[in-house]
Amino acid sequence: MTRRFPPPDELVRKLEGGDRSALGRALTLVESTRGLHRALAQEVLQRLSEPAEPAFRVGISGVPGVGKSSLIETLGLHLVERGHRVAVLAVDPSSLRTGGSILADKTRMPHLSRRSEAFVRPSPSSGTLGGVARRTREMMVLCESAGFDVVLVETVGVGQSETDVAMMVDTYLVLMLAGAGDEVQGIKKGILEWADLVAITKADGDNAVRAQRAATDLRSALSIFTPASAAWRVPVLTLSAHAQQGISELWDGVRRHRLQGRKNGRFEARRSHQREHWLWATVHDQLREAFDRHPEVRRIRARVQAEVLSGTSTPQQGADALLQAFGIDLAAVS
Amino acid sequence: MTRRFPPPDELVRKLEGGDRSALGRALTLVESTRGLHRALAQEVLQRLSEPAEPAFRVGISGVPGVGKSSLIETLGLHLVERGHRVAVLAVDPSSLRTGGSILADKTRMPHLSRRSEAFVRPSPSSGTLGGVARRTREMMVLCESAGFDVVLVETVGVGQSETDVAMMVDTYLVLMLAGAGDEVQGIKKGILEWADLVAITKADGDNAVRAQRAATDLRSALSIFTPASAAWRVPVLTLSAHAQQGISELWDGVRRHRLQGRKNGRFEARRSHQREHWLWATVHDQLREAFDRHPEVRRIRARVQAEVLSGTSTPQQGADALLQAFGIDLAAVS
Repeated sequence: MTRRFPPPDELVRKLEGGDRSALGRALTLVESTRGLHRALAQEVLQRLSEPAEPAFRVGISGVPGVGKSSLIETLGLHLVERGHRVAVLAVDPSSLRTGGSILADKTRMPHLSRRSEAFVRPSPSSGTLGGVARRTREMMVLCESAGFDVVLVETVGVGQSETDVAMMVDTYLVLMLAGAGDEVQGIKKGILEWADLVAITKADGDNAVRAQRAATDLRSALSIFTPASAAWRVPVLTLSAHAQQGISELWDGVRRHRLQGRKNGRFEARRSHQREHWLWATVHDQLREAFDRHPEVRRIRARVQAEVLSGTSTPQQGADALLQAFGIDLAAVS
Repeated sequence: MTRRFPPPDELVRKLEGGDRSALGRALTLVESTRGLHRALAQEVLQRLSEPAEPAFRVGISGVPGVGKSSLIETLGLHLVERGHRVAVLAVDPSSLRTGGSILADKTRMPHLSRRSEAFVRPSPSSGTLGGVARRTREMMVLCESAGFDVVLVETVGVGQSETDVAMMVDTYLVLMLAGAGDEVQGIKKGILEWADLVAITKADGDNAVRAQRAATDLRSALSIFTPASAAWRVPVLTLSAHAQQGISELWDGVRRHRLQGRKNGRFEARRSHQREHWLWATVHDQLREAFDRHPEVRRIRARVQAEVLSGTSTPQQGADALLQAFGIDLAAVS
């Protein structure tokens, strides 16, 4: 098995030289669930040098139907025509069930995926949700070392995957649709916590006026939560991938966010915070995985949960039983 | 030590009979960090019967200065005058540092705390933040069994304590101030995720007009995120504890939220979800505590974290080292 993979040093050298097949092999190592591959992948990641100029790490989030792949295709082509090299990755929670990912799907970005300056890779589809996000982040680092200076990370705007992507990018873009009524569709209130930029998509034809109105409403909604002194006021744009409108304005927004962050130190602070986040997120995820897989825990968990739900045990008594099954002495925990 | 406490059955009988000193003793058991008291507290909690009519569990959140204690004093007196028995509890993250809590402070609710129909207890001040929330939730259950049919749980609107309180109440009230500019002060965007009711406080005198305007702005901001079909549209009220205005309207809002939830099943579903939440939150908190206290983990954690921050190790390598120190074999985790 190891024979198929060159030693880490060689892989790193080729990958940093821009060798596409070396990148492919390194990505395969990261995606593998085999212990040997995992260890090899970590050796490769550890040996990589950071790019002299940090890559653009941009998260793109929105519900299915909001037009993520059309935008990424259009934005990606816009960027490669301006000399950028663009990698498209994804964190897709549904890939765990289906074994495949509809996000960062080459068939949905046919023009971009055929360009040699671009690289489109679907979401990892094995492991746990935390594992998918960790692997995507590692794939991002590999792509950057292979010379891609823009990484777009796509995700659906649901639950944990939002947070996961927000915690691996410099700029988080939330896509939304103008609704039929007054409301802005495709957003959970909580997502505003993460957004650095918001764009209303499909702002063309009959929809253009509705999109403008939704943008105005959203701008005033955001402004009442943002103190005038805030360093960054989240811009709300409208765009149409179909009509190729608003694309360069969107990229201007991403660049302004980056420039300001690099000037006031928030860019570096965010990256540093993220490195720390991923250490502890990995520890806690894998601690929970070890717990969830423990045979004694598995044997009693359904019964314990039923007892707590019915009120036969208190939550603390249930937790005591489960932790004891895992071998933790609660007297030491308090 | 056990001699000071009657056997659990006797304590339960007295407590359910409304004996105030039995309630005080049970609360002391819940707050204790001693293993023996902890076990006794769980036995008491396990033996309690649920009230025939579930109590009102209301969370009240807002930044310092928003007027939480004035509102609770006024609302509490309003309720005892209408025949309710009102317990006031708190989850105060700062109590862990200072050993005391400014929330649910009797001196800040002088009239209410002197009423025999009311019971005011500050935040637990030992253990971890997760432990403070767990203990407050257990104190809430004790108060309900002792005949308090309204429990108000106070918290400052920061970080985890928000979520903790939202996960133990039926109705979550967020208090805010009208700002000097356009913005609504004292709110994080993410808190809207939790709010069932919002009230702009100090809506009196010169401030009344600003408060009304802030309420109008906030209503339209909320409406653009809420589909017309939503079962519950978050009401935005204005009130003044000082001028005793808006208090009965606020309680009407709490009652409407409860009545609607009991009709459409969301009340029971939420409580059931919360019981499950507390089981797993307790498990995961205590798992992390056991990890954080492990001597081998403590010995290496500063070094591992520094290596990950400097890029000498990847986050996964750092996590591997820490989990190994804890005694978890990662080959089994994937």
